[in-house]
Amino acid sequence: MDDALARARLHRDAHGPEILRRFADLLAIPNVAADPEGLAENARRIRDAFLDRGVHAATIALPGAATAVLGRIDGRPGGPRYGVYAHYDGQPADPQHWSSPPFTPTLRSGALEAGGARIPFPEPGEAVDPEWRIYARGSADDRGAIAALLGAVDALDGRRPEATVVFLFEGEEEHGSPHLPEYLETLADRLAADLWLVCDGPVHPSGRPQVVFGVRGIATVEIEVFGPPTDLHSGHYGAWAPNPAWLLSALVASLRDGSRAVRVAGFSDGAFDDPEAVRAARTVPDPGDLGFAPPAEGPGYAERMLRPLINVRGLRAGDVGEAARNVVPASAVASLDLRLVPGQDPEAAIRSVRDHVAGLGFHVVDGEPDAATRRGHRRIARVTGTPGYPGVRTPIGHPAAARVIEAVRAAGGDPVLLPSFGSSVPLHHFVEALGAAPVILPIANADNHQHASDENLRVGNFWYGIDVLAALLG
Amino acid sequence: MDDALARARLHRDAHGPEILRRFADLLAIPNVAADPEGLAENARRIRDAFLDRGVHAATIALPGAATAVLGRIDGRPGGPRYGVYAHYDGQPADPQHWSSPPFTPTLRSGALEAGGARIPFPEPGEAVDPEWRIYARGSADDRGAIAALLGAVDALDGRRPEATVVFLFEGEEEHGSPHLPEYLETLADRLAADLWLVCDGPVHPSGRPQVVFGVRGIATVEIEVFGPPTDLHSGHYGAWAPNPAWLLSALVASLRDGSRAVRVAGFSDGAFDDPEAVRAARTVPDPGDLGFAPPAEGPGYAERMLRPLINVRGLRAGDVGEAARNVVPASAVASLDLRLVPGQDPEAAIRSVRDHVAGLGFHVVDGEPDAATRRGHRRIARVTGTPGYPGVRTPIGHPAAARVIEAVRAAGGDPVLLPSFGSSVPLHHFVEALGAAPVILPIANADNHQHASDENLRVGNFWYGIDVLAALLG
Repeated sequence: MDDALARARLHRDAHGPEILRRFADLLAIPNVAADPEGLAENARRIRDAFLDRGVHAATIALPGAATAVLGRIDGRPGGPRYGVYAHYDGQPADPQHWSSPPFTPTLRSGALEAGGARIPFPEPGEAVDPEWRIYARGSADDRGAIAALLGAVDALDGRRPEATVVFLFEGEEEHGSPHLPEYLETLADRLAADLWLVCDGPVHPSGRPQVVFGVRGIATVEIEVFGPPTDLHSGHYGAWAPNPAWLLSALVASLRDGSRAVRVAGFSDGAFDDPEAVRAARTVPDPGDLGFAPPAEGPGYAERMLRPLINVRGLRAGDVGEAARNVVPASAVASLDLRLVPGQDPEAAIRSVRDHVAGLGFHVVDGEPDAATRRGHRRIARVTGTPGYPGVRTPIGHPAAARVIEAVRAAGGDPVLLPSFGSSVPLHHFVEALGAAPVILPIANADNHQHASDENLRVGNFWYGIDVLAALLG
Repeated sequence: MDDALARARLHRDAHGPEILRRFADLLAIPNVAADPEGLAENARRIRDAFLDRGVHAATIALPGAATAVLGRIDGRPGGPRYGVYAHYDGQPADPQHWSSPPFTPTLRSGALEAGGARIPFPEPGEAVDPEWRIYARGSADDRGAIAALLGAVDALDGRRPEATVVFLFEGEEEHGSPHLPEYLETLADRLAADLWLVCDGPVHPSGRPQVVFGVRGIATVEIEVFGPPTDLHSGHYGAWAPNPAWLLSALVASLRDGSRAVRVAGFSDGAFDDPEAVRAARTVPDPGDLGFAPPAEGPGYAERMLRPLINVRGLRAGDVGEAARNVVPASAVASLDLRLVPGQDPEAAIRSVRDHVAGLGFHVVDGEPDAATRRGHRRIARVTGTPGYPGVRTPIGHPAAARVIEAVRAAGGDPVLLPSFGSSVPLHHFVEALGAAPVILPIANADNHQHASDENLRVGNFWYGIDVLAALLG
């Protein structure tokens, strides 16, 4: 692995300008959903780049889906086997909001925010500064990962690596990967691997490399509490009609306690203790200043991401501010997102919330209550759940992960080993379709402007991507 | 009193068509704020109608105020002395939404909802059906009361009554009576009375006559809880940033309990026990079917109006429904109206809510928190109070009220004696400017469409108004 890494560094020291220029050629192809031909051209260009290097690669298009690229870098027979997932599509890009056109890859001497100036792409033989940035849609999210794998192949210089890498690059991630499960199932026999690396997202905000071993699942719930059939005068009826705004407040307050522990019976059923993850989480630094006071007590940031959460994302009843009227509102609505840890079933979590609401004395309905229901029940609530998908966590001690951690450390220094993101990503598809353990291996800088204008990849992070994948190939 | 009532009934039996026609002449004059000349013409016409009947009457206009009409019907020296308040202005009326033009008084054989057909005004000598309705803006709210007093004067037929009645009719009630305190203070020496009758609002929904001895006071409070400086991703920060929507829910839930007892220390300071009012309230029937289940336990409707109340009129945080996003919202707002009983001070009630919020551990601010405040405090709330005015209650046993109750019973049968409306009306002006005890003596039918299109006064209620004021004059 050390040799492989050293070769990768020599290779990019010698050929940095050529690597950047080839990356820029790829970034110049529009990669947005509104341009299907551009997407298809991305897929063809990527396939051809691997084929040119003697790597097995092919495009495949399921009906109605954007083309996917799959392939295999053959390693030593009997050696470790990894999957690499990335996506070549990007979020829409409105040129008006960009400092340089999103599909005119532009090199700058540093981040725009730090006064980075536009510079020409270097000529072969010139030195490359790792602080340079390449601005283009999809530079960081997520074509940089694909280019890094190409760079790692180049560094092999024809040698057979220790590890085999199978890869799948899709073109619909920014639309929620609607065909990813079908691609994974269809191609399962060609995508078998000891561990799947999802090369997406940013490294740790500190700049340290990061390996993320899990994600939370998600479900959403909307609760509507019904009061009188129409808004009623609060002077005349405030003490007589059910007030759905107060009832909803008490209901929402009952869902968790001040320390955020969920107080819904059965909600956390199936969630298992994961002492290894907790131990690892305690080594992860908390986020820096975010403009608010962090929790005064309780677990640190990373440990909190290992717990189920009920988040209140919206409340609506009557009016506030200048529009407020003296009424008992006819209804009150709370919108919740449930963040689930592995073992929790999204449907069961929704049911537990529904049961909790019933347990508070509400008559739970599925639609608008009819007149008889309204007259027969003082407390009426509609609970509407939308199951998302389950959480996934790969043990940090997973045998196939050790080599990944070793490669990351060699390529980028002491890594942050995050047991789980707090957010939700459908990694369960890899588990369900391939029976594979997924981990997230981000390459991009944290300030890459993902999804926004002026998306950029720091050259040093691009180099890190090449290095870490080269080391993994070994 | 019985003689006076009998004379009034004979008078309107003999002259019903003429009384209706004179009332219609008044209703034909626009009485909306957008037509100041119409308002002034109302005042002049009302003044002249009293002068024509030999009653002292005058108009007076304070600077910037709509003209008021004041006057006095002289009774027996040393006899009881009552004040009668009414307003001649009405809510705006958009003819598009009316079945007949709002200022073309229209007689119908019954309520529109019951299929009432348009009929011609009767000729002198024809019979008048008490179920007829007069449709026009201001027929019920509140020119009917003024016309009823004129009818009661007519029924005197030149006799000197037992009671003296001073009266004040204003033209700004629908704008919140901004100059009423000044009128009352300016004219205090001419408006002295044992009891002031506020002739406004509807009789009991059952059709029974009603005397209302009090109103609640009011203040409003808006509470904004601050979370992160901007909406944050709820996956990444839902367990780390303060969630203002949950904090606000718990805060709002803490303000009262399931039986609506206020749980804010000091909120009810000054409120006194009023066993006489409670006893009276227990004789008042609860409202009929309002489309929701009435409270399963606890006091009846009228008794609840004797208690302080915190009503939640609005909640706002993030988004709900299709617009919901997976965020920790940056802020959450609740809007409250506080209904106060006599003895409670609106400013003190607001302070008690503020102190309650602080007692829950919130750092209470007056404006947007600055960056240092946000970083220094985990729970931050802005509490903004708008004091309204205090509640008022006249003892049902007030000596001067006995004659009113007697007149109401004689004119309209067994009355509902309501210790207090739940709503808020600034009757405190009568107490503060005149030192007078006010009671509300409504005349209009409950289905009068007050403030809406197709406002109407039932002729039987108009007759009741004449009868009760004639009986009171005696």
